Amino acid sequence: MKFNKLAIAAAVCSSLTSPVYAGSELETLLMLLHENGTISNEQYQRVLSEAKANQKTVMDEKKEMQSALDQATKVEFNVSKGGLRMKDREGNFAMKIGGRLQLDSAWYGEDSDASGSQLGDGTEVRRARIYVQGKMYKDWGYKLQYDFTGTGNKGIKDAYLTYTGLKNLELKAGNFKDPFMLQEQTSSKHVTFTERSLPDAFAAGRHIGLMASTKHQHWTAAAALFGDSVSTASKSEDEGWGAAGRLTYAPINEKGRVLHLGLASNYRTASADDSVQFKQQAETHVSGVSIVNTGNITNVDSTLKTGLELAAVAGPFSTQIEYIRTDVERTGTDLAFDGWYAEAAYFLTGETRTYKKGKFAGIKPNRYVGQNGMGAWQLAARYSTINLNDEDIDGGEADSLTLGVNWFPNPVLRFSANYVQVLDIKGGAHNNEEPSVFQLRGQWAF
Amino acid sequence: MKFNKLAIAAAVCSSLTSPVYAGSELETLLMLLHENGTISNEQYQRVLSEAKANQKTVMDEKKEMQSALDQATKVEFNVSKGGLRMKDREGNFAMKIGGRLQLDSAWYGEDSDASGSQLGDGTEVRRARIYVQGKMYKDWGYKLQYDFTGTGNKGIKDAYLTYTGLKNLELKAGNFKDPFMLQEQTSSKHVTFTERSLPDAFAAGRHIGLMASTKHQHWTAAAALFGDSVSTASKSEDEGWGAAGRLTYAPINEKGRVLHLGLASNYRTASADDSVQFKQQAETHVSGVSIVNTGNITNVDSTLKTGLELAAVAGPFSTQIEYIRTDVERTGTDLAFDGWYAEAAYFLTGETRTYKKGKFAGIKPNRYVGQNGMGAWQLAARYSTINLNDEDIDGGEADSLTLGVNWFPNPVLRFSANYVQVLDIKGGAHNNEEPSVFQLRGQWAF
Amino acid sequence: MKFNKLAIAAAVCSSLTSPVYAGSELETLLMLLHENGTISNEQYQRVLSEAKANQKTVMDEKKEMQSALDQATKVEFNVSKGGLRMKDREGNFAMKIGGRLQLDSAWYGEDSDASGSQLGDGTEVRRARIYVQGKMYKDWGYKLQYDFTGTGNKGIKDAYLTYTGLKNLELKAGNFKDPFMLQEQTSSKHVTFTERSLPDAFAAGRHIGLMASTKHQHWTAAAALFGDSVSTASKSEDEGWGAAGRLTYAPINEKGRVLHLGLASNYRTASADDSVQFKQQAETHVSGVSIVNTGNITNVDSTLKTGLELAAVAGPFSTQIEYIRTDVERTGTDLAFDGWYAEAAYFLTGETRTYKKGKFAGIKPNRYVGQNGMGAWQLAARYSTINLNDEDIDGGEADSLTLGVNWFPNPVLRFSANYVQVLDIKGGAHNNEEPSVFQLRGQWAF
Repeated sequence: MKFNKLAIAAAVCSSLTSPVYAGSELETLLMLLHENGTISNEQYQRVLSEAKANQKTVMDEKKEMQSALDQATKVEFNVSKGGLRMKDREGNFAMKIGGRLQLDSAWYGEDSDASGSQLGDGTEVRRARIYVQGKMYKDWGYKLQYDFTGTGNKGIKDAYLTYTGLKNLELKAGNFKDPFMLQEQTSSKHVTFTERSLPDAFAAGRHIGLMASTKHQHWTAAAALFGDSVSTASKSEDEGWGAAGRLTYAPINEKGRVLHLGLASNYRTASADDSVQFKQQAETHVSGVSIVNTGNITNVDSTLKTGLELAAVAGPFSTQIEYIRTDVERTGTDLAFDGWYAEAAYFLTGETRTYKKGKFAGIKPNRYVGQNGMGAWQLAARYSTINLNDEDIDGGEADSLTLGVNWFPNPVLRFSANYVQVLDIKGGAHNNEEPSVFQLRGQWAF
Repeated sequence: MKFNKLAIAAAVCSSLTSPVYAGSELETLLMLLHENGTISNEQYQRVLSEAKANQKTVMDEKKEMQSALDQATKVEFNVSKGGLRMKDREGNFAMKIGGRLQLDSAWYGEDSDASGSQLGDGTEVRRARIYVQGKMYKDWGYKLQYDFTGTGNKGIKDAYLTYTGLKNLELKAGNFKDPFMLQEQTSSKHVTFTERSLPDAFAAGRHIGLMASTKHQHWTAAAALFGDSVSTASKSEDEGWGAAGRLTYAPINEKGRVLHLGLASNYRTASADDSVQFKQQAETHVSGVSIVNTGNITNVDSTLKTGLELAAVAGPFSTQIEYIRTDVERTGTDLAFDGWYAEAAYFLTGETRTYKKGKFAGIKPNRYVGQNGMGAWQLAARYSTINLNDEDIDGGEADSLTLGVNWFPNPVLRFSANYVQVLDIKGGAHNNEEPSVFQLRGQWAF
Repeated sequence: MKFNKLAIAAAVCSSLTSPVYAGSELETLLMLLHENGTISNEQYQRVLSEAKANQKTVMDEKKEMQSALDQATKVEFNVSKGGLRMKDREGNFAMKIGGRLQLDSAWYGEDSDASGSQLGDGTEVRRARIYVQGKMYKDWGYKLQYDFTGTGNKGIKDAYLTYTGLKNLELKAGNFKDPFMLQEQTSSKHVTFTERSLPDAFAAGRHIGLMASTKHQHWTAAAALFGDSVSTASKSEDEGWGAAGRLTYAPINEKGRVLHLGLASNYRTASADDSVQFKQQAETHVSGVSIVNTGNITNVDSTLKTGLELAAVAGPFSTQIEYIRTDVERTGTDLAFDGWYAEAAYFLTGETRTYKKGKFAGIKPNRYVGQNGMGAWQLAARYSTINLNDEDIDGGEADSLTLGVNWFPNPVLRFSANYVQVLDIKGGAHNNEEPSVFQLRGQWAF
């Protein structure tokens, strides 16, 4: 039940000063009885004064109650979405306390003739986060999110301040994700598979910086300037810096029907040691083994990443395609790496993927488990490929096929099973290997 | 004051539609005066319509107030137990935010002829935890607890999801304690002494896994399957895994009178490097020195731990005894280590130890400090022993006597003083040493 | 609106039992009409009993509403200061959840003939903290604060328990700041410049200990006994310990007019390895380079620090001066280092610096941004100097001039720009360098 307290407060207050009030009918009757001569003048005055006195008592009581009620409804709370959400009546302040837990278990199958290091079966707390997020003085926002699986400042995720006092423009300062790649913009709790696709090797990640963005029904634009990541300690040399921009256009954007196009660019100078590295696991994280890996590329000036995005939703069906190319400028010959993926998913239970402001959001099942429902069930498939071979760099080229099933008992919970078959690896330390992955995840997030 | 809001809401709402309503007596009087001819038809109608109009105003006001009140009582809050607890009126959602702080200071005494390394006096934040815990959609629960004294994912303690939608059966997935040893099942904030006894070297700890458990007035049972601990990163070899079960039987279980019997078993394969180690400090943690220590035992296949538990409460008196045996299967001769302890405690102030669902819970003093009371005072003594000598392993055998006094000013606070005298160490690096420990702890926990 | 719920509850409850009640006037009229013979005895009884029945219904409804209201106002909430604050009606329990984020960006300029290591430009999350703080059972308090930029227990900041049940005396146990130096007592979110002055090399920091303090309008006193810091793990040698005391006297202490004098002393034995080190960056933290640095001073027995404080506020103008001397007792010749700073600041927008209990507190702008205001604007200048040269120790002597501007859009936010010019370095690894610093900070704190 959505409930407008201001309206109530106004209604309640106006009724206090209304000329008609409860009990006035008795005074009218008294007056008539007096006029009729049924009661004497003295009797009339006696009852009338008692009525007036009582009226005052009633009014005072009501006022006190309304004051208390006013106080009690000053802050509105909600725990019905898992975390704690609160906001003040006037809409100037709000606060959320929430978290995320992802529990993974993975089993690996490999060719017997594999020459490289093996993938080790195991379990993992993939992400364990808490955050506080809020709004203050109407136009300002903040967020501080920490992932306990990280060590020290490597666990700092979103940590920023926003200003939204300008029409349709958000200014953001702090540590947050570069506006790059659709699968990165979409939260890890909402991506279709347990792990993002192979070209996530080119993900830009989070940096400390400034971003201006504008978001509309049919398009979004973001431009940002970044320093280095939180965990980079500048010492005797300057840290790296970067610039990023992303444009999205959604000619169709309504519930259950979406067409999304995106274009993003990400420039970054090399960090203090003038090196970069690209590597990627087999769409799994429990094992720490990267199946493709450029190793440390030295003498690097800068990298320029370009991303193309295409996504569509048609009722229970959704698809998403991205191509990423990374150009590495270095002393000597420049390098270029790239990769792409295409995924499709289908809700057996009729839900539709939610698209908001240039990225995908969470799933709300049509019927929850425990409320005469079986939650939402989704099937998904993905092909992804990455090429880290270029010039003298023999990082390897890999492609993989992933099948997944997701079960959302309610909006807070998610269980996923993924099967990944690496189809081929050409070059690199894992040349000709074809590992497979079976992975389970349990997740709560709010 | 426990307060049933649903009942109130029902009562309030039913009164709205009640055929008898405040003010109806005036209408009755009007009717009678009209019948008696005291007032004219016109006068009757005039006052009646005014009464009706006022009645409507009163009803509208009441409805608005009740709506606001309904909103204000949608979530019920409680800060009177230290942390923040909230739950929605319908019982579908709940959330707690709490924490624990343990501050230790320790002084060590030693034989002058001690040959090994010395124990260093000092202070320590023993545990500094916060957690969020909750219930959602009635049948699901979650917890995320972090200990800031740990580094990175080593600080992740309870991190799990539960399902309680099945009758008398709880399913739990995530990171949580193996169901093994009574002194481990009992929270560190509720154990009798500042540190657990010597055989805690055999504690199973927390692992990522799945557990089914059932809890009854007179018995509990739990069976679980585990992967490795959170902080174990699988790489090129499979992580270890384990299976655990625990049965408890309480033929007597009423307030102030408890008899508890327990039997538990814990199997675990060795981690990737095929080694295990058992070691234990002198029932203290400030100094990092272990008085018994097997060192790294290599070529290990698996360990099997067996635990026997006996505990009783009789009014202010309580006692607890455990025996643990650990069998190590390895290439070559297998090994067996064991240990046991017996403790007894007595409340001078008349409280009784609380037993719930196969383990001990917290103390609520009869009279709080600041409310005409002196809190709860408890005296305790413990004998414990552990033997880590077997075959080629010379880990040492030790036994110690511990005396303790606990003061609980209120249900949130606890202050403890412990004196530990190690009676003898046979074998190992600390052979023939007899260190003593004096330790103070201040604790808040909610 | 400050709102006394107890008074309301009392008023509401007393009105329930009042002999005059709403509706009594009708009974009086009935009685008169009966006496006049206008209505019959039977009619009188009928209406009267209906009135009585209705009266009871009204009373019951009111009682239910008041019970619900009582429940709804049991805990009072406030989110209008940024974080979440709550307290129970009786004043026995309270809880705050809050945090702090400081985002820094720094650029460094240096002499071309600088011989030492360079300062590297960069960005940084300077502090990212959350805390829970509360009151329980009226006389007890607690706080647990963690800084996510620290690793493991190095991130533990305030972690303590307090007892305030004694008149004008606070007892504190746990991890908290030594009572030493005005610029250290003043929170990092409230100090005038982004970083504290050069003599902060002598800051005592936080240790685990016990403190008794008393705070009055015109003076404060604190005495404390400490073990070592949280992150010091005692092993085979005893940890260091310390004793500290601080006296402040404020002959003038009213809003807008303050004169503060302070004297503090801090004794500490050397840690297990018998060494101490003093070093300081150029009033910046992004670069990790210390411009003065004693290196490891060995064979140290103890240090004794002495601090003198002087501060004044006159309307928008404020000033603050401190001198610190550190005596190092060691095998061989003893050492003495010292330093001082003087700063002055002025609010262009008319605010005044808030002084409370021997230290400075936060700024509340006269007019907030977004509420017809431009926030508070403050200009500040500081000279500071430190001498780490003595005997065989060639740590360097440095002095610097700092200019700053602070903008406080509202009580939660702060943006600062600082320019630091190191005037000269004599001795040490950075002899004759004159680096400069330009630093920006964005901060939210509540």
